[in-house]
Amino acid sequence: MVIVIKPRTAQEEIEKIKRKMEDLGCQVHETIGENRHILGLVGDTSKIDPDLIRANRNVEKLIYVQEPYKKVNRLFHPDDSVIKVNDRSIGGDKLAIIAGPCSIESEDQIVTIAKKVKESGASFLRGGAFKPRTSPYSFQGLREEGLELLKLAREKTGLPIVTELMSADYVERFLEDVDIIQIGARNMQNFDLLKEVGKTNKPILLKRGMSATIEELLMAAEYIMSEGNENVILCERGVRTFENYTRNTLDLSAIPVIKKLSHLPVIVDPSHAAGLWWLVEPLAKAAVAVGADGLMIEVHNDPANAKCDGQQSITPERFGSLMKTLKEIAKIENREL
Amino acid sequence: MVIVIKPRTAQEEIEKIKRKMEDLGCQVHETIGENRHILGLVGDTSKIDPDLIRANRNVEKLIYVQEPYKKVNRLFHPDDSVIKVNDRSIGGDKLAIIAGPCSIESEDQIVTIAKKVKESGASFLRGGAFKPRTSPYSFQGLREEGLELLKLAREKTGLPIVTELMSADYVERFLEDVDIIQIGARNMQNFDLLKEVGKTNKPILLKRGMSATIEELLMAAEYIMSEGNENVILCERGVRTFENYTRNTLDLSAIPVIKKLSHLPVIVDPSHAAGLWWLVEPLAKAAVAVGADGLMIEVHNDPANAKCDGQQSITPERFGSLMKTLKEIAKIENREL
Amino acid sequence: MVIVIKPRTAQEEIEKIKRKMEDLGCQVHETIGENRHILGLVGDTSKIDPDLIRANRNVEKLIYVQEPYKKVNRLFHPDDSVIKVNDRSIGGDKLAIIAGPCSIESEDQIVTIAKKVKESGASFLRGGAFKPRTSPYSFQGLREEGLELLKLAREKTGLPIVTELMSADYVERFLEDVDIIQIGARNMQNFDLLKEVGKTNKPILLKRGMSATIEELLMAAEYIMSEGNENVILCERGVRTFENYTRNTLDLSAIPVIKKLSHLPVIVDPSHAAGLWWLVEPLAKAAVAVGADGLMIEVHNDPANAKCDGQQSITPERFGSLMKTLKEIAKIENREL
Amino acid sequence: MVIVIKPRTAQEEIEKIKRKMEDLGCQVHETIGENRHILGLVGDTSKIDPDLIRANRNVEKLIYVQEPYKKVNRLFHPDDSVIKVNDRSIGGDKLAIIAGPCSIESEDQIVTIAKKVKESGASFLRGGAFKPRTSPYSFQGLREEGLELLKLAREKTGLPIVTELMSADYVERFLEDVDIIQIGARNMQNFDLLKEVGKTNKPILLKRGMSATIEELLMAAEYIMSEGNENVILCERGVRTFENYTRNTLDLSAIPVIKKLSHLPVIVDPSHAAGLWWLVEPLAKAAVAVGADGLMIEVHNDPANAKCDGQQSITPERFGSLMKTLKEIAKIENREL
Repeated sequence: MVIVIKPRTAQEEIEKIKRKMEDLGCQVHETIGENRHILGLVGDTSKIDPDLIRANRNVEKLIYVQEPYKKVNRLFHPDDSVIKVNDRSIGGDKLAIIAGPCSIESEDQIVTIAKKVKESGASFLRGGAFKPRTSPYSFQGLREEGLELLKLAREKTGLPIVTELMSADYVERFLEDVDIIQIGARNMQNFDLLKEVGKTNKPILLKRGMSATIEELLMAAEYIMSEGNENVILCERGVRTFENYTRNTLDLSAIPVIKKLSHLPVIVDPSHAAGLWWLVEPLAKAAVAVGADGLMIEVHNDPANAKCDGQQSITPERFGSLMKTLKEIAKIENREL
Repeated sequence: MVIVIKPRTAQEEIEKIKRKMEDLGCQVHETIGENRHILGLVGDTSKIDPDLIRANRNVEKLIYVQEPYKKVNRLFHPDDSVIKVNDRSIGGDKLAIIAGPCSIESEDQIVTIAKKVKESGASFLRGGAFKPRTSPYSFQGLREEGLELLKLAREKTGLPIVTELMSADYVERFLEDVDIIQIGARNMQNFDLLKEVGKTNKPILLKRGMSATIEELLMAAEYIMSEGNENVILCERGVRTFENYTRNTLDLSAIPVIKKLSHLPVIVDPSHAAGLWWLVEPLAKAAVAVGADGLMIEVHNDPANAKCDGQQSITPERFGSLMKTLKEIAKIENREL
Repeated sequence: MVIVIKPRTAQEEIEKIKRKMEDLGCQVHETIGENRHILGLVGDTSKIDPDLIRANRNVEKLIYVQEPYKKVNRLFHPDDSVIKVNDRSIGGDKLAIIAGPCSIESEDQIVTIAKKVKESGASFLRGGAFKPRTSPYSFQGLREEGLELLKLAREKTGLPIVTELMSADYVERFLEDVDIIQIGARNMQNFDLLKEVGKTNKPILLKRGMSATIEELLMAAEYIMSEGNENVILCERGVRTFENYTRNTLDLSAIPVIKKLSHLPVIVDPSHAAGLWWLVEPLAKAAVAVGADGLMIEVHNDPANAKCDGQQSITPERFGSLMKTLKEIAKIENREL
Repeated sequence: MVIVIKPRTAQEEIEKIKRKMEDLGCQVHETIGENRHILGLVGDTSKIDPDLIRANRNVEKLIYVQEPYKKVNRLFHPDDSVIKVNDRSIGGDKLAIIAGPCSIESEDQIVTIAKKVKESGASFLRGGAFKPRTSPYSFQGLREEGLELLKLAREKTGLPIVTELMSADYVERFLEDVDIIQIGARNMQNFDLLKEVGKTNKPILLKRGMSATIEELLMAAEYIMSEGNENVILCERGVRTFENYTRNTLDLSAIPVIKKLSHLPVIVDPSHAAGLWWLVEPLAKAAVAVGADGLMIEVHNDPANAKCDGQQSITPERFGSLMKTLKEIAKIENREL
């Protein structure tokens, strides 16, 4: 941690800051410049609340040298984490392909889609039961009934199931019913929810918030891990920018960056990023080429009549042919599908 | 609602869309251009899920003519809403000044600050008991103990109290203890929480999410109102941009825009927007000049030792002198403080 | 300047960096942490090209302690700069109000508007002769003919004139004809143009680029000043964000920030920021309350038939009544209009 | 074009707008809703200046149905454009790989790099002679001397050369010396420069501005094409967002979007997007997988001592091995390198 002192600060004020830092267990190295005074802190600074330093009126800025996250940090955990989900895993050589509809609509719909995506090689089934919608007047999901239908589809196909948890009230239920709990973009900083799922040992798929920096995504993962749950899978799904042709701007640079900073696996959701079905294929290919550990893709057997996000869903047929191309790209990266 | 059909779409496909819209209770007016075909819909389109239309592969785009919100819409409620809070109100001629520390730290701290801000003319007391923090290792608030201290401060000063609710688990408690429930920026689209507070009739202070558009803020308010609670106060607190000198970029244009689109009162939080104490004063003055219905300002008696956000807190003395200037600006706007 | 070395860098590589910095005339102070190694540089670092350091594969990051700008820096020029324009000045107690149409359309139009804004108290006349338009098919301004009409309006009213220069080809002409040369937002980083106007001593109104940080705006001003021209006036006109109700998001926090970092005067253009005439009034009031040194406002006698930007222009009547309110707010700030 | 009229507008005002549109050569179709009135325009609307309509106080919004660009529009030019550059071409089956240093530093440097990138399969040589730098104190390029060295490298390798033009003053010189003229991100809306290069028939590499929407990029290309030059190559190089780990956020979705909207070829510059050398490889692979027509990559034989952007340059060795992988990915896309 580096503390930059404001120009023209009295030496005694600087001494006070130094003593305070020393009291917090740090060694302080001083660099005296012409206009600025710099204090370099050595020791375990991870427990120091930066607000306490920034609040000092003589401090111009505070610069982190060490990352504010520990458990997600690759520095202390050099090997890739591989998350076990039933008999499968996410983060190893085999890419995790999670496919399924935006929302579960009926037994027929979810079972049909599940079978088709399995045939094409998907290894996990997604489907929304509880849906976060911008409008209170939009379809909110089949909720508990949806969960039941999703379990049925798992039974018929053997595919582990992924679905979004929106409220701590349902944690117990999800622990029992679901194989991977998804925390959606809008809840990435719902810290109470993060803590709740952190107390379990269920795999958590944590989506990046719409305007979250990579560091904030890692801090959200740190919330889960700091409660004891180390089974975290990250997901890039586009960030909000001024460009409005696409729903969000997919930030593929985030994949190699996250893999450098953290040991956690990271997958990509091209469907929500683009918001347009014809962009899903090129973005999925790019995601595999850039090094993602998997994909989450919306597949619907009748997109034009889907109850939600039909415009970004691809058909099982297109999904099938996409999988073939992905397999070839994965091979170049020494990975399997 | 206007539907733009893709170039070269077969007439029979267009007919299908027209029939579907008519089945949904709309009249369809067709405009046939050289390259595009346009369908104008007349009737109550507010119940039509736009996803159903966008998902049609022959639809190029869907354009809202009418706003997607109803209860917050000024079109159907031309007069300003005034929200009653105990014996006070927010949204009328008198500006609502909410002041207090970022977090409640001790009885002495909160009572001292409450008395001081009251003396200077604040009409509500704020103080965080449950704190959403980016890092799990930062101070998370005194939680229930904090609530008790806040109530004590209310008892000693008579100021109604405002504090943030982070989880539906505490709704009952907050209903009993608190005068205004704050929904923080990170939870603006925590739809389950919005629905919960929507079922009460407690005044809700709803902060704009860090990357929420004005329309999304209004849709979040619509969630609360659609459950029956009409006591919603909106709050602009800065949005995330590329500029990083300030913590967020305060969007003061949002104030007159919101007042045009909606009848709900809207206040400004310059402290969280700027993240720097010396910006609070100029931004507070600008907020009153731009037409805000009130302000939420962080005040701390010892900012350098505040447990959170000390760098953006002003002292009671500065708050006192700021209030004097605000009073003068308010007068020009024919409002009182 | 602080250099953070990557974890696990060999000591001899660190020594190389230290020697290189010493060769560049700096003293190097070393802080050895558990995982990171920090080098604090003392001396004149302003001439060190940061790219040279960042390019070193063992450098994790480079942190500026001192600002990269010198001539615009308030640190070395504590007093406010006041820019003289003919017999007037910008930056002192009197606010500079620049008003006029987006584009000059005819003698009658520009002279009529000039007279009206002068009556209401404007001190400078604006009018576009050369217009930067997103589409090549939109009206591009009357160009040289426009300049002549603008001069005519100055003759009839005595108001100094401000207009945008888009190309170095016209510098000579503008030096002769114009009182303040405007560099538009799209050309803020047209460095060749900045250097050209930097070689003159004409007052330059430099608008912030649509996605320029405050630091980049100051660096653009530094380009002009480093060539010798110290007569620079900055202008905030909104930045690009995800919010699209307004054309741009006016960043009023930038005003007090710029005034802290620099001694240059800074004005606000609420018309281009908002893109909507009914937002000009509240934003103009807020700009004065936040501490701007002046305003640039689009005024048109017949907005509905304006050749450009009519939707953001106010009528002379509204401008007149706005000026009265601005006068009152200015008084509170101990300034005149 | 669809015009939405404000609620409660008098019928005679609507009639005036209708007549005005008819006078401009359009047919007007009216749709009368409960709260809004919609006018659908049929005919050639591309010459109508939208400002003229938006300025009408009774118009709520104006919605484009047809794109504002014509010559770049794929609708009127369904086949991909292939741009000839000497004996090579950009936009066909063969990917265009443009490689070379950020800036030309010496004969030895540029010739050495040119030979190495050619060996690895690059088909064009890049090198900056005139450099746009944020700081006036940074290295500004060797300018005319740099051009001479670049020509020398072309002579020795046969690689066509690409370099940035910053000022209209040098158009003649560039026409003679250079094979592709680059217009940099900061000058994307320097409309005078666009018009100048539009009057030539030299291939133009037009980079997307840092905060330009895809539509604005296409409108900038329209500026060039509307002057007669149809040889335009577009380049995505990252946009500005709130994320600051990377220099810019590479928007790979823009590639398939541009290819849908326009017939022009589009390449990707991963070096400037990321600003970090270790991100160039994954992003280059993703760019080929997403469907780009080529790449522009910064290669330097001694990045740590490069005069500019060394932190984002890769070595010739890494470039060589990257090319091998790119070849394999290109093959999957049925393209060659």
